[in-house]
Amino acid sequence: MKKRFFAFWATTALLFASCAGSGGGTVYLSDYLTEADKDDAMPAIRAALDECRRTHAAELVLPEGVLNIRPEASYERYQCISNNDESLKHIAFDLGGMSHFTVRGQNTILLFTGFISPFSLQDCADITISNLSIDYTHTFHSEGLIRATGDGYLDVEFPADYRIGLDNGCLYIMDNEWETYPFGNMLEYDPVKDEVAFDANDYWLSRQTLPAEQIGDRLYRIHKENIKATVGNVMVLGAAARLNPGFFVADSHDILIKDVNLYHCGGMGVIAQMSRNIELNKLVIVPSPGKGRVVSITADATHFVNCSGYIRMIDCTFRNQKDDATNIHGLYMGIDRQTSPRSLQLSWRNGAQQGLQFLRPGMTVEIVRNKTMTQLCRATVKSVEVLNRHITNVTFTADLPEGIEPDMVVAADDAYPDVLISGCTFSGNRARGLLLGSRGKMVLENNYFHIPGAAILFEGDGNYWFEQSGVRDVTIRNNVFENCNFGYRVWGNACISVGSGVPDRTSGECYHRGITIEDNTFRVFDPRILYLYSVDGLTFRGNRIEMTTDYPYLRGTTEHFRVLDDCKNINIQE
Amino acid sequence: MKKRFFAFWATTALLFASCAGSGGGTVYLSDYLTEADKDDAMPAIRAALDECRRTHAAELVLPEGVLNIRPEASYERYQCISNNDESLKHIAFDLGGMSHFTVRGQNTILLFTGFISPFSLQDCADITISNLSIDYTHTFHSEGLIRATGDGYLDVEFPADYRIGLDNGCLYIMDNEWETYPFGNMLEYDPVKDEVAFDANDYWLSRQTLPAEQIGDRLYRIHKENIKATVGNVMVLGAAARLNPGFFVADSHDILIKDVNLYHCGGMGVIAQMSRNIELNKLVIVPSPGKGRVVSITADATHFVNCSGYIRMIDCTFRNQKDDATNIHGLYMGIDRQTSPRSLQLSWRNGAQQGLQFLRPGMTVEIVRNKTMTQLCRATVKSVEVLNRHITNVTFTADLPEGIEPDMVVAADDAYPDVLISGCTFSGNRARGLLLGSRGKMVLENNYFHIPGAAILFEGDGNYWFEQSGVRDVTIRNNVFENCNFGYRVWGNACISVGSGVPDRTSGECYHRGITIEDNTFRVFDPRILYLYSVDGLTFRGNRIEMTTDYPYLRGTTEHFRVLDDCKNINIQE
Repeated sequence: MKKRFFAFWATTALLFASCAGSGGGTVYLSDYLTEADKDDAMPAIRAALDECRRTHAAELVLPEGVLNIRPEASYERYQCISNNDESLKHIAFDLGGMSHFTVRGQNTILLFTGFISPFSLQDCADITISNLSIDYTHTFHSEGLIRATGDGYLDVEFPADYRIGLDNGCLYIMDNEWETYPFGNMLEYDPVKDEVAFDANDYWLSRQTLPAEQIGDRLYRIHKENIKATVGNVMVLGAAARLNPGFFVADSHDILIKDVNLYHCGGMGVIAQMSRNIELNKLVIVPSPGKGRVVSITADATHFVNCSGYIRMIDCTFRNQKDDATNIHGLYMGIDRQTSPRSLQLSWRNGAQQGLQFLRPGMTVEIVRNKTMTQLCRATVKSVEVLNRHITNVTFTADLPEGIEPDMVVAADDAYPDVLISGCTFSGNRARGLLLGSRGKMVLENNYFHIPGAAILFEGDGNYWFEQSGVRDVTIRNNVFENCNFGYRVWGNACISVGSGVPDRTSGECYHRGITIEDNTFRVFDPRILYLYSVDGLTFRGNRIEMTTDYPYLRGTTEHFRVLDDCKNINIQE
Repeated sequence: MKKRFFAFWATTALLFASCAGSGGGTVYLSDYLTEADKDDAMPAIRAALDECRRTHAAELVLPEGVLNIRPEASYERYQCISNNDESLKHIAFDLGGMSHFTVRGQNTILLFTGFISPFSLQDCADITISNLSIDYTHTFHSEGLIRATGDGYLDVEFPADYRIGLDNGCLYIMDNEWETYPFGNMLEYDPVKDEVAFDANDYWLSRQTLPAEQIGDRLYRIHKENIKATVGNVMVLGAAARLNPGFFVADSHDILIKDVNLYHCGGMGVIAQMSRNIELNKLVIVPSPGKGRVVSITADATHFVNCSGYIRMIDCTFRNQKDDATNIHGLYMGIDRQTSPRSLQLSWRNGAQQGLQFLRPGMTVEIVRNKTMTQLCRATVKSVEVLNRHITNVTFTADLPEGIEPDMVVAADDAYPDVLISGCTFSGNRARGLLLGSRGKMVLENNYFHIPGAAILFEGDGNYWFEQSGVRDVTIRNNVFENCNFGYRVWGNACISVGSGVPDRTSGECYHRGITIEDNTFRVFDPRILYLYSVDGLTFRGNRIEMTTDYPYLRGTTEHFRVLDDCKNINIQE
């Protein structure tokens, strides 16, 4: 942390504090901003938010224009955020515990510097955030132009505002304030097509060691065995961790994010866990305009974990983010052992889930055989003892049946979200489009997909990612799927695909059920439209398939539909 | 975190729980241990400690023999620990909030695996920990035998229980459970003399990049520009962070650690902050016997920050730890700006201090000019507002005087510890012996020093480490100083030396005062006994100086005493 001086309490803030309305009033951030806050509005934001809390204000209004926001004077919380990285976070708008409250921008641009999270909503109710943009002076990932390639090396030119360092011959990247931005992977983007490069693969760099040498002004030769890339493309060094998501929503309900441009953040765009009724309306996640960046945010655009009520994405655009457009699923904890006839010791098996608490007295859970992914039983939680981030002891209201074994998994089974995704555009990002895992009613309509992997993936497993899925009622209609699967093969094998982990598929029971795909247009260079296993009940009708030659097709398969033997009640009308 | 199954509640634990005495009783850990706890006593320790809390037991008795302890089921706390590294800690014996309580071993060996802290005492009173040993299955640092050297490289052979990996041609080190142990520096030890190698320097590795190649069975060629070392010595790769100190004591009083062997931990041995009355009695910090290790613990043996009452080290042995034997000092926060006639915004200027809270309403502080290290004024704290780990706003009971400027520093000035260090042996460790910074009465007697840097250093500064010192009453008598300063020159320039940072020494006021050095024996190959500046009042009498030829003397100076012009009242009787 740099040494700086902060204007903490602007004199005007003290003057206006006593004038603010009490209950349901409006607080104007501009009343708290002074010349001293030009480089960092954080002290003013704290003062204004404190005032909003004190007076139970209904609205915080942000001024037009750019607000620079830095971490030094920010709020802090240790946060375990599903599928992101836990840490003690710097937070700008920490709305923890607030309710019936709106943060309303006026085309405000929140311009962050450094490792700080824009919005955190924990234990919130009825919150609206609207009419603002979020960007960062320096990105958490790094982008460099590929100038030349050779056997085991790339020559990459980095922009002028990157400080490049070499430590024992290995590359590191800093911003203009000497803050380091660790990277964990490399992926090539095509700046002309404005998307992940055709058939480009992830190169993983688990330990921050990337041998390099400087060979020119801002030009570095990066050495990596068997690396391949195309001159003129952009090599993206992906952020090593997902520390600062755009909007973190936890244990909250009735949240609306509307007319927001999220140009960058250091994690997922919106990550919601154990929350109810969330709407994203005209949320636009695209690379920052005019800055020459090819990547928008550093992970999934959105992600919903153990949510309920409704999840709505209306008229959103998610483009060029560094991972999937959304993933909606529940959480499985693994059974360590049965400690009494009605008690289990559970532990998290996916490190990115650890520290989450979804078990509450009174709730219903399912106990699932992890190999067949079939339900052993349902049970009602009586009490919960959280030992630490890893281990939770849970006691149920009644004795559990015979047959419980270690490594079986436990998930909430009482409230799944209804999902509506409508009028959205998904394109250019890494990996997949929508990962659908709610057992509520899911409707996807009037969307556009141009995705390097599967546009829609039905996932879920109890052995690797430990994400509960198993859909029951999905309608996919009136969407356009255009040239999906132009990326690397591991990201999908059809426009609409099943990717669940069901190691033993002999149970006769299917993990996913009730899918209707109708009246969509598939405009594709890759003929593979559907890939199904462990699905009971799927109707494909009224869809149009148009073949293109927009990309070379590298895979052998030419069939549109691949339905494995363990599926039932599949009705495909070409 | 590995997937494992834990025996959490041993059946016997439940049986015995109801029999335990209520108030002042004794709890036996053996009553909670079952066969299932053989690989991990942590569940039993939690059950027993919970019972101690519930019944306000006076004593927890540990069984004889080895207890294996793992992190998975441990307690967790986010801890900001002065001069160590903050993080969410795994903790075994978390005694937070307990009082009038003893953890009594019976020659018990606590054998830890992984990143877990042995003892945490926050908000404790009257605690004794006795008669046990602490060790780890795998060390936080790494040791390898130097088999050959050459231009810009070393060939190092690592023990069989290290897993060595190469990632993009850079070295990393894991234990047998695939846990990585990051390193941040290299330092050579002499396994025959059993100490830091003669004149050996630290090599810093800030970014975990150490190019290497495997050239034989367990033999690796490590590349580093200008590296020098001696074949047959041990190269120690120092731990990159100080995450798991042996004993963390915070906001506590009347703490006794007695008859304890601390063979290893991943941070300082005993780090106490804002605590009162601490005695270390027969605390032995040495490399684990019979394991062939040259290093004991990975940082300072002990460290005391803003403590008061007494600090006693009686009959202790601190050998071969990876940093100083002790450092006793206060904390300076920097002034960002004056926010009102009686208010200041302060921030931490040393990242290893951030998150500490020493300011309390009613306490007296000093405001110090950071260039001259002279006191501008004293003031009484009225209220404290902690913004986050970095910034604190403090308001005083009266208006502050003129002349306050940014970067001046603020420290507690109301209670300094009296220090007694007696009968102790300090040898073989990295860097210095005792860093003395209390303004209380300090007595050092009957100790033995064989230190690669200064045996005793008077430090303190308000611009770099931000450690408050300025001694007032120090007696150093009847000690033996044997061949100190055999290490690299930056660690000291005399047996007893001043190392304070006083950028402007024109004030006429001396930072350190009142030092008596009498009846000691200096048996030295390096003639430099005293190096003084900014000292007012020092008497050197009745000491014996014997020259040896045990090490080659590389420095030019031949004088015993170097007293700079800004000292006053210096009385040296040879």
